[in-house]
Amino acid sequence: MTKAYAAKNAKDPLAAFKFKRREVRPNDVHVEILYCGVCHSDIHQVRDEWGESIYPMVPGHEIVGRVLKVGDAVKKFKPGDIAGVGVMVDSCRKCKNCEQQMEQYCVEDMTGTYNAIERDGKTIAQGGYSSNIVTDERYVYHISPKLDLKAVAPLLCAGITTYSPLRYAGVTNGTKVGIVGLGGLGHMGVKFAVSFGAEVTLISTSPSKQKDAERLGAHKFLLSTDKKQMKAADSYFDVILNTISAQHNYKKYLNLLDLNGKMLVVGLPSEDPRTSPFALIKNRRSITGSMIGGTKETQEMLDYCAAKNIVADVEVIPIKKINEAYERMIKNDVRYRFVIDMSTL
Amino acid sequence: MTKAYAAKNAKDPLAAFKFKRREVRPNDVHVEILYCGVCHSDIHQVRDEWGESIYPMVPGHEIVGRVLKVGDAVKKFKPGDIAGVGVMVDSCRKCKNCEQQMEQYCVEDMTGTYNAIERDGKTIAQGGYSSNIVTDERYVYHISPKLDLKAVAPLLCAGITTYSPLRYAGVTNGTKVGIVGLGGLGHMGVKFAVSFGAEVTLISTSPSKQKDAERLGAHKFLLSTDKKQMKAADSYFDVILNTISAQHNYKKYLNLLDLNGKMLVVGLPSEDPRTSPFALIKNRRSITGSMIGGTKETQEMLDYCAAKNIVADVEVIPIKKINEAYERMIKNDVRYRFVIDMSTL
Repeated sequence: MTKAYAAKNAKDPLAAFKFKRREVRPNDVHVEILYCGVCHSDIHQVRDEWGESIYPMVPGHEIVGRVLKVGDAVKKFKPGDIAGVGVMVDSCRKCKNCEQQMEQYCVEDMTGTYNAIERDGKTIAQGGYSSNIVTDERYVYHISPKLDLKAVAPLLCAGITTYSPLRYAGVTNGTKVGIVGLGGLGHMGVKFAVSFGAEVTLISTSPSKQKDAERLGAHKFLLSTDKKQMKAADSYFDVILNTISAQHNYKKYLNLLDLNGKMLVVGLPSEDPRTSPFALIKNRRSITGSMIGGTKETQEMLDYCAAKNIVADVEVIPIKKINEAYERMIKNDVRYRFVIDMSTL
Repeated sequence: MTKAYAAKNAKDPLAAFKFKRREVRPNDVHVEILYCGVCHSDIHQVRDEWGESIYPMVPGHEIVGRVLKVGDAVKKFKPGDIAGVGVMVDSCRKCKNCEQQMEQYCVEDMTGTYNAIERDGKTIAQGGYSSNIVTDERYVYHISPKLDLKAVAPLLCAGITTYSPLRYAGVTNGTKVGIVGLGGLGHMGVKFAVSFGAEVTLISTSPSKQKDAERLGAHKFLLSTDKKQMKAADSYFDVILNTISAQHNYKKYLNLLDLNGKMLVVGLPSEDPRTSPFALIKNRRSITGSMIGGTKETQEMLDYCAAKNIVADVEVIPIKKINEAYERMIKNDVRYRFVIDMSTL
């Protein structure tokens, strides 16, 4: 049996739980989980805030561990390797998007790591707040053992979610990038954009974030509640990464974009934000959504992080503090990601 | 004195009006106006629906005429030439956007053809519902006399407004393009997209538009009130040109976009539309705004239309029918653009 913490419904706190992982199939990698990051989407899904949640639910999709065993046909991994599992564990593997390793946009929809039904049509996929996971090697990533593993876990969601759109938008030397919000996603956005050579501004409602933003490498700070500062930054940025998951009107940030500027949306407010068509047509601005990254790009991101020594800023907790951690996350009281030490399970 | 029709306030009907155009300066072209198209934005501005309207207001920014006189320094035009004036008559001419002939995105804001103050800071710019116009040659375009001039007028706004974003989005042979709404903008969008070699679908709430869409060259028709048809078109299109100026949620059309699909927004609802971040992150979809076109691209579009014999479908009216025409436009009772015969002034 696999030990875990699970939500049994949308109301009660997470609690200890046991379940059975599948037998290792020829293409499967069996990973002992060392660390699992705590993503804000864990809370949304545990509490059924996006609808259609499946219980019992073992959350967790920022998984780092050590390979225990591999199936006969596995080529990429051997026991002892450090490995990661992210937001998806399967997809149709034959559609045009899967064919170009953009499985997150699978035409038949990817299979999430948890709160999903596996492609056998019956098994509930269970995530990383558990002692081990069994996953097809296509959706398992190599992780450099040189990195601080507990701080690697958040790369599997917060990392790729920010890396992928910044790359897609062509952020490079000298690009003027604004990062809106300094949380789990935002702090990775700052690190990546700085590493790509961009001129990075943190945009926040909270003056207290300025110091941390500078420590993370941001070059400038823009207080979004200060009308004068916002007016002065009108049409300034080439790219804005919007990580806000609270309700807001996109217009406020669109106005900061220069000609052909792009606002990248990775935050998921539960109510549909409004957007101003007048702000869009000025400067030919765009809003572009982005969802994690495909298997090829996720491995590329992890290799890039190994080369550049980029990891998340984390606070490690024992599993029994998970419910308290959720409450602190809702108050933005974490810098910048909780990671569960799975040896405490 | 220049004869014209003007709005004296937001409430009263347009009525005959006289005013004085400036003397022809060295770089000016003096154009006798033959035809002026009637744009939906004329109504918005006459009725002060976007705010800050300036009265008296002579509307009209789809202007075609014959050059009467040119200033000493004018190089591009000579008396007798057929010429057009569009949505802008000036800009700062020195900012980075003006320098690349994207004057519509002038950092100091372009000067509109009407409902604007000229760059002298005092003169009210007056538009094309008038017998003549005096404009710096930079903002005047050559028009092939081979084209049907009354049907050319709408190219100066409806034409360039749809041509520019379809080009920016890279529409070419085989691109799957959806055009939402079959009005002044939409019917030009269909014509351009078809001429670029795209597979074009008209998307409309009105089944009565199907026949006309086919006549204009559209290959398919999608009834947007039919849930089954909309579901079947999920993730189908590469590009959607959204011309709707009524209130709506962008989500409905975003869901129709395939991987990296782009929704081009050229309609201007007066209330900010909502947009779904979940629909945006799926397939990495974008919403991109676009405002008319710069002087270089507007001339390119007019030359393209001359080469391909593309013009608008118009209903010519005498100036005294302008108020009635506005009422019919509000009821979508025009196929697809009213054009005023200025000899009736």
